[in-house]
Amino acid sequence: MSTGAELHSACETLAPLIGTWRGPGGGHYPTIDDFVYLEELTFSHVGKPFLAMTQRTRNGDTDAPLHAEVGYLRPQPNRVVELVLAQPTGVVEIHLGRISEENDTLTVDLRTERVEGTRTAKPISEVRRRLEVTGNTLVSEMWMAAMGQPLTHHLRAELTRA
Amino acid sequence: MSTGAELHSACETLAPLIGTWRGPGGGHYPTIDDFVYLEELTFSHVGKPFLAMTQRTRNGDTDAPLHAEVGYLRPQPNRVVELVLAQPTGVVEIHLGRISEENDTLTVDLRTERVEGTRTAKPISEVRRRLEVTGNTLVSEMWMAAMGQPLTHHLRAELTRA
Repeated sequence: MSTGAELHSACETLAPLIGTWRGPGGGHYPTIDDFVYLEELTFSHVGKPFLAMTQRTRNGDTDAPLHAEVGYLRPQPNRVVELVLAQPTGVVEIHLGRISEENDTLTVDLRTERVEGTRTAKPISEVRRRLEVTGNTLVSEMWMAAMGQPLTHHLRAELTRA
Repeated sequence: MSTGAELHSACETLAPLIGTWRGPGGGHYPTIDDFVYLEELTFSHVGKPFLAMTQRTRNGDTDAPLHAEVGYLRPQPNRVVELVLAQPTGVVEIHLGRISEENDTLTVDLRTERVEGTRTAKPISEVRRRLEVTGNTLVSEMWMAAMGQPLTHHLRAELTRA
């Protein structure tokens, strides 16, 4: 997706995200056992006013694929950002968020305005996501309300720029 | 995404889709001028019960990127299939569809159960999509209800397996 096109000016505040990031993560939730994974997360652009996002996780021992998600970050004026995501679990998410910078850390804080699923998808009522980039480190966190649980911390991965 | 994993049995009916497809397409809609484009469409798998879908179109003269969409096809029992899609326009689609085969042609006919958009996305009320694979040819068509128009034929591309 990064074709050598010049970055669109709307994407400048999100520029620290662009690249491929890899590292370990861990998950927990009241209804399941704790788990660990390896994550690869990529943000790319084609010169238009959005970034494409591709995420994949796999089992660190067996290399078997676990989760995946794909979508687009759409920066708006005044440090607002929208995110649309599709997942192989049959879930789509529409987020509204804010971009902030403090002490060399870029933070993107996102909350779902809509979470929808196919007929066979497990229902999720709300998702919060946070991306924090400091130099060559990206910390990705996710909170989820599902299975009758309130919004609860679910995932954290600490990734390094590849 | 195709890591050499064995195709999941749930995906067998969709196997003719797997691969990368390229070719020309054209669009029309009552509210805009007709247009043409070049499309690349990829269906891939990782051994799990879904196919990942990635689509990109570009201007055939300037090579500039036009549209894109990413998502997952989720085959279900009895030739039912679900599709989730995210688009850089801020739109997500949840489709329910059917898989059929006749005279060496595989047809996947899909209709949205939900179309949702971010706050700044142009509202779309319904989408129909059809994929028809005959050997090394894939015809992709899309109908859309938006901008006050009823469900109207919008896009058709005839692609060849790369």
